[in-house]
Amino acid sequence: MNDAAASSPTATPAEPGEVGLVSPRDYHHHAPFTFDNGRTLPAYTLRYETYGHLNAARDNAVLICHALSGDHHCAGIHSLDDPKPGWWNNLIGPGKAVDTNKFFVVCANVLGGCQGSTGPGSLNPATGAPLALAFPDVTVRDMVRAQKNLLDHLGIASLHALIGGSMGGMQVLQFGIEYPAFCKRLLPMATTARASAMAIAFNEVGRQAILQDPEWRHGNYPAGGGPRVGLAIARMMAHITYLSDASMDRKFGRRLITSHTPSASPHFDPRFQIQSYLLHQAESFINRFDANTYLYITQAIDHFDLVNANGSPENTLAALQKNLSPIEARTLVIGFTSDWLFPPEQNREITLALLRAGKSASYAELATDLGHDSFLLESPRLYDLVRGFLDS
Amino acid sequence: MNDAAASSPTATPAEPGEVGLVSPRDYHHHAPFTFDNGRTLPAYTLRYETYGHLNAARDNAVLICHALSGDHHCAGIHSLDDPKPGWWNNLIGPGKAVDTNKFFVVCANVLGGCQGSTGPGSLNPATGAPLALAFPDVTVRDMVRAQKNLLDHLGIASLHALIGGSMGGMQVLQFGIEYPAFCKRLLPMATTARASAMAIAFNEVGRQAILQDPEWRHGNYPAGGGPRVGLAIARMMAHITYLSDASMDRKFGRRLITSHTPSASPHFDPRFQIQSYLLHQAESFINRFDANTYLYITQAIDHFDLVNANGSPENTLAALQKNLSPIEARTLVIGFTSDWLFPPEQNREITLALLRAGKSASYAELATDLGHDSFLLESPRLYDLVRGFLDS
Repeated sequence: MNDAAASSPTATPAEPGEVGLVSPRDYHHHAPFTFDNGRTLPAYTLRYETYGHLNAARDNAVLICHALSGDHHCAGIHSLDDPKPGWWNNLIGPGKAVDTNKFFVVCANVLGGCQGSTGPGSLNPATGAPLALAFPDVTVRDMVRAQKNLLDHLGIASLHALIGGSMGGMQVLQFGIEYPAFCKRLLPMATTARASAMAIAFNEVGRQAILQDPEWRHGNYPAGGGPRVGLAIARMMAHITYLSDASMDRKFGRRLITSHTPSASPHFDPRFQIQSYLLHQAESFINRFDANTYLYITQAIDHFDLVNANGSPENTLAALQKNLSPIEARTLVIGFTSDWLFPPEQNREITLALLRAGKSASYAELATDLGHDSFLLESPRLYDLVRGFLDS
Repeated sequence: MNDAAASSPTATPAEPGEVGLVSPRDYHHHAPFTFDNGRTLPAYTLRYETYGHLNAARDNAVLICHALSGDHHCAGIHSLDDPKPGWWNNLIGPGKAVDTNKFFVVCANVLGGCQGSTGPGSLNPATGAPLALAFPDVTVRDMVRAQKNLLDHLGIASLHALIGGSMGGMQVLQFGIEYPAFCKRLLPMATTARASAMAIAFNEVGRQAILQDPEWRHGNYPAGGGPRVGLAIARMMAHITYLSDASMDRKFGRRLITSHTPSASPHFDPRFQIQSYLLHQAESFINRFDANTYLYITQAIDHFDLVNANGSPENTLAALQKNLSPIEARTLVIGFTSDWLFPPEQNREITLALLRAGKSASYAELATDLGHDSFLLESPRLYDLVRGFLDS
């Protein structure tokens, strides 16, 4: 059952401190999966990677949960000339905060994703065309339940820890609620118990940019085509919400582009570096991401709600406390001072509700000026916190 | 020369405290106007409104400068069944903070605008088609110089005060620099000496949504048509940046829409009130605003720069001090704690530079949780500040 553990990463010696060469694998779940909305798929696939080795007790696994635009490739490289390692390579590796000499690290592209897992871009075997909107509405809880089947397949008896930021943090919390005894440590960061009106608002603008792009065609666009303009607009905007005023001013300020080939409407060509940076980010994103997945996953984020009640702050806290009460894991929530998308108070609130429920929970706040993306970026103080919590 | 002062508002008695019925007028400047970029228009029009009466000394005029999406109609109503008064009606009127019993209030749609002033939507007499991109790049300084001609036409000897928020605040500062002796009091609020990288980034996303809308057609779209989708996306996004997390949570939270007619793709129909609110805001905006004007004016905002230097905070402040040094007016800058588009520190910086230049300048910060739009909203504390400053 733990064939994946034995064979991934490959036998190629890793650089000291680096996971090195890794290969993604596919887990095929050959049984029906019923989504939260009642709809069923006859089977599904999750693409995943693992690093390190599962121990004999099968209790040293760490699940990494990715955010909206992330995927299963969170550490290592895919080829020797790969210019870019996995998205959390700074955190994960031999001797790193998530030490692959100690832990068996697993990361899967979520259900509904577009990097190899079943999602709206997957082909409908009945028609040969992408499922598109025939893919069921997916929730964070669906993502979590789908990943649990993979972990069972890998022979994991219990998770030493679950770590994730943003939507990854939502999965971490939901996992701890669904499978209390299975989860020993939860480490959600830069996350929220439920998206605020502002977070929903930004997601809605992104979705509208896609939905109203004439190339969207109600989701039935050809592979490689589709609402590239709408997806680019959605990404540019979202990217701003992951940064901060201070970090953008430091990195770009009002510095001008030094050379530039005029377009057909040079009046409005980019002049500031921040403009060309955003355009470049969007271009790179639309070449790797599927627009329908963007719609489904942002909606899953918006609908995620561990409070599920309106009313006073006290009512909110009481409802959150009740919904988090199944959790048995030790929990460390990390917030970042400059995160204005899922700001510190939303992370503190989770901890407060857990403490009121009598759980072992703590909150750490890291002072950064890098915005929501702080959790992804080089930070020895974050590494020390993660390492300490995993050793606890 | 002061015919406007005598005839506007109309003779219809105003409600106590209200400006009442007003009619816009057009100022036609029948002489060439050369823009900052060197291009010239043979003539231009500004649509404007006035309230109150110019005194014998011709020194009681208050100029109101509008923001990106504003216009000349800042107070009063256009007909007896007008459901909505001008955009700053809460501030301006008989006995209000800007007291039209004392002051002769003038407000003009900016050059480049789309509410009656000459802009990219104006017809090119040579072709009969809209100027579109034949309209020259416009700057905040161009807007100010065009308005000065109107004020001269109205016979105003000097301005008792200039008041404006956001881009209106930029105009107020620029006016004080261009015409030092003419401006007695400057009241810029919720503004900045130069747009930050983040502010430029948001404007760029809005412009790209328009520029990449296939209906934009390099600016040559038919009247009433054009990039309505792109303009709607731009507006939805910008609208979020004018609000705050707290105000949206209070007003909408995660409350659901109670009734809804499903669309052709009901998967992604709005479910939260914040979604339908944004869609409604966008729909209303695209019916009153021109997409090319949106491009020109956001670019004017991005290019506005009273620092015009890169470097350390000390260099920035020294450069700003130098550029503000022509100002002779007394200045009161007002910042709003929850404004994250042009945050308090950017407003404080203006004051600091003025004080270093030996000017009469002060800064007031109002604690609100309503975001950038705070300057437009009901606030007795703002009214008292404005009243006190105008009486000073």
